[in-house]
Amino acid sequence: MAVHRSNIPFKTKGEIEIIDITKKVARIVHKSQIDNGIVSIFVPGATGAITTIEYEDGLVADLSAAFERIYPKGLEYKHELRWHDGNGHSHIRASMVGPSITVPVADRKMILGTWQQIIFVELDVRPHDRNIVVTVVGE
Amino acid sequence: MAVHRSNIPFKTKGEIEIIDITKKVARIVHKSQIDNGIVSIFVPGATGAITTIEYEDGLVADLSAAFERIYPKGLEYKHELRWHDGNGHSHIRASMVGPSITVPVADRKMILGTWQQIIFVELDVRPHDRNIVVTVVGE
Amino acid sequence: MAVHRSNIPFKTKGEIEIIDITKKVARIVHKSQIDNGIVSIFVPGATGAITTIEYEDGLVADLSAAFERIYPKGLEYKHELRWHDGNGHSHIRASMVGPSITVPVADRKMILGTWQQIIFVELDVRPHDRNIVVTVVGE
Repeated sequence: MAVHRSNIPFKTKGEIEIIDITKKVARIVHKSQIDNGIVSIFVPGATGAITTIEYEDGLVADLSAAFERIYPKGLEYKHELRWHDGNGHSHIRASMVGPSITVPVADRKMILGTWQQIIFVELDVRPHDRNIVVTVVGE
Repeated sequence: MAVHRSNIPFKTKGEIEIIDITKKVARIVHKSQIDNGIVSIFVPGATGAITTIEYEDGLVADLSAAFERIYPKGLEYKHELRWHDGNGHSHIRASMVGPSITVPVADRKMILGTWQQIIFVELDVRPHDRNIVVTVVGE
Repeated sequence: MAVHRSNIPFKTKGEIEIIDITKKVARIVHKSQIDNGIVSIFVPGATGAITTIEYEDGLVADLSAAFERIYPKGLEYKHELRWHDGNGHSHIRASMVGPSITVPVADRKMILGTWQQIIFVELDVRPHDRNIVVTVVGE
């Protein structure tokens, strides 16, 4: 049994940016030399989220629209009244979706659906240096 | 330390179908011979989701109703304009809930609440052959 | 490779209570003697949820308000019609957010954002004795 951890660093421009990180995670899994197990994908930071989607332009736009419709920017947020950083809605969106997923690994590859990609969702209003943490655990 | 992976295959009829997979996951955990650790439950595919619920008819209906109320079918989805497969809402629902959960394992059993079941939620509009991946990691 | 499991027990008063459990999880990780791996945080029970947030009074209030706005108490829930325990909305909220997250561990510490805390969200209408399960897997 072994643990292999690596990072995926990138810059974002601010809300809402949806980034397909599947290939980068796949490369880390392959290089880990771990044949079977699980891989955890996690965002350090409370204004981003990790999930999966069929990554195509239509759905990328639809997911952004859904965030804006369900968790609108224009509401009164107590966070805003106190801190004035304009991102109360970003925090709520991130907490509701969550910071992590876990994907099975077999023969050094992730088991994903054919039309399923792993995404990082930048929900904050300002640019960030993000550093997604990928941890493979297995044998 | 060891890894044990197995699948739960079944057919679905299309949205919204909520399937209790707790007993099947429990059987895989028991047979894995892994006494202590975690079990990851993951759906390959971007139009289904994994979560937990108290599995009884009332809540099964309530969860379906909540999906329809919060992420309605009738909105204009860019995915639909482009691909015409009628499931833009299915994708958005699946991304928001997520494809995986992780449950602790002790003495070859999952630690779950008394009224807590693991469910797969079929969110796609059409039938699928689903194949949930269950991975036990531990010792 | 090793597995270390421990519990975080506490009492809650009922909805909506948002409890920062980061320090308690960190202590379990540190004591586990596992240097590198992942830690799974899971709530047994179908009326609570685990996620992360920047834990400050403004956002704690905003998250509660978002739950009430998106999944209102006052709707007709089939669960309520059948069981009369007044918590149909609690169950739906819990299923949508999910019972677990997984956080990476390096040098016996979790890798979290500077302003990111791990929270348990009590969504049930009545007080509970909660017992969060923390499982560290690694080497």
